[in-house]
Amino acid sequence: MPSPSERISESSMTDLWNLWFTELHRRRVGLTIKIKQLLYTAKSPYQRIDVLDSYEFGRMLVLYGSIMVTEKDEFVYHEMLAHVPLFAHPNPKRVLIIGGGDGGTLREVMRHKSVRATMVEIDEMVVQTSQKYLPSIGTAFKNPRAQVLFEDGERYLATCKEKFDVILVDASDPVGPAEVLFQKPFHKNVARCLNPGGIFVTQSESPFFHQKTVQGIQRNLREIFPMVRLYTANIPTYPSGFWSFSLCSDKVDPVAHFKESRVKKSGLTFKYYNAALHRGCFALPSFMLEDGEDIGL
Amino acid sequence: MPSPSERISESSMTDLWNLWFTELHRRRVGLTIKIKQLLYTAKSPYQRIDVLDSYEFGRMLVLYGSIMVTEKDEFVYHEMLAHVPLFAHPNPKRVLIIGGGDGGTLREVMRHKSVRATMVEIDEMVVQTSQKYLPSIGTAFKNPRAQVLFEDGERYLATCKEKFDVILVDASDPVGPAEVLFQKPFHKNVARCLNPGGIFVTQSESPFFHQKTVQGIQRNLREIFPMVRLYTANIPTYPSGFWSFSLCSDKVDPVAHFKESRVKKSGLTFKYYNAALHRGCFALPSFMLEDGEDIGL
Repeated sequence: MPSPSERISESSMTDLWNLWFTELHRRRVGLTIKIKQLLYTAKSPYQRIDVLDSYEFGRMLVLYGSIMVTEKDEFVYHEMLAHVPLFAHPNPKRVLIIGGGDGGTLREVMRHKSVRATMVEIDEMVVQTSQKYLPSIGTAFKNPRAQVLFEDGERYLATCKEKFDVILVDASDPVGPAEVLFQKPFHKNVARCLNPGGIFVTQSESPFFHQKTVQGIQRNLREIFPMVRLYTANIPTYPSGFWSFSLCSDKVDPVAHFKESRVKKSGLTFKYYNAALHRGCFALPSFMLEDGEDIGL
Repeated sequence: MPSPSERISESSMTDLWNLWFTELHRRRVGLTIKIKQLLYTAKSPYQRIDVLDSYEFGRMLVLYGSIMVTEKDEFVYHEMLAHVPLFAHPNPKRVLIIGGGDGGTLREVMRHKSVRATMVEIDEMVVQTSQKYLPSIGTAFKNPRAQVLFEDGERYLATCKEKFDVILVDASDPVGPAEVLFQKPFHKNVARCLNPGGIFVTQSESPFFHQKTVQGIQRNLREIFPMVRLYTANIPTYPSGFWSFSLCSDKVDPVAHFKESRVKKSGLTFKYYNAALHRGCFALPSFMLEDGEDIGL
């Protein structure tokens, strides 16, 4: 007679287990992902935090009900947020990251050996969660060139006396705790804390599903920065699979001033970013241009 | 006393109606879309055909259980399949479309006034369905410069005596009726039916979800065509939201030989395509390059 554990077949443990996580990207469309296991759920002072283990994307960090990173496709977002500005800038030394609690952006920034970084994350529990559950992403928190502060990023910048070469905003959507990071008072402080020739990049939502938000962020940024350029990347687990980033500067044109040789000299290799893509990702679909048509999505 | 139709409130007709169409893009991830109504279902000699009306994407043509086009995002696929080769070619006159039964590719091709096109679709019912249910897409079937044949595209090309400047394969996935259109015997006939300097483009699946298929198609094409280049586009309702196209030629380099002035001179405007994007869409993420890393998705 089989023991009880032998009677529980492999298929009853996996194939018959039918748990799906669905993130609605708009009210009536969403991505649905089959889940092996819920690994962690917590309520921090700022948001609900979940870690889910999925079949297709590996482990997923979910904040506020939205997928922030998955092990399988996080490389796109983090490489494109970090390396586009760090290679557009001729000689970055000081980098500030606002948000980015999962650590993926810091990990990519730290690959530039000439750089010292400060990361200001409001929610310490996100960092702790990433260190424990996403060890391939939260790898750089203890790097001696990195300083990690648990503070309100908006308040940090409002009183900050230091200047930076590159400032990155790695925030969740402009609802909830990150809302202020998409608004003009914050962007004015960003501009004040950039060195001459400094570069600011913020994630700026889905061109398809948030067309008006993307346009609104552009308009706000153009009132503060002389140079504002959008670039894009393909992220399967983000709404519509297509994402935008806004790059701002007083004078650096991220394409015209880009020196491909710096990428080669760095010796770094990437899963997504490369020198040709650096130029290509600034070529926008017509509907994303300033006079672009409303696509009605 | 209210009449029976007054007693049925608006919300019971819409808000409480909760019908979702889920297309699994891999076994354990899919896109889920709320549906207003099923407009049409049929079984043709080749496949199951459905038309669904959705809240977010308008009407959707579903073949073989997969979304082929939606009213809201079809412009991306059709513009990128048609205009990249038609502007890469210096002077296209004869165009052949294999598949493309919804008519969107033919519609975009016909915007080039110097072009006569032949479209060879195996399944007449797809064309009839599009004409009836997707009138903004199936607009060009009666254009006097267009000839529409209902035949097996593979057999048509095997015996075809004519030569074309541009050949487009607008097929469903390489399973089911379209399978032969991704194989070498077919590609040899394509090469035979191209004029010198002619261009062939075929849709070639999702770089993220079908990485090995994309690579396999490239390898096959490189055995036949001297010049094979991948380009990409962002299509929210296709698997991973990111799609690849393979462009092949005996000698035309779609970037180096591209003349931006032809786009301007055409007087055409686009929702997605433009001259800068023509160059940009050939800049591939590192994992899509020939020595690209397996992303494990």
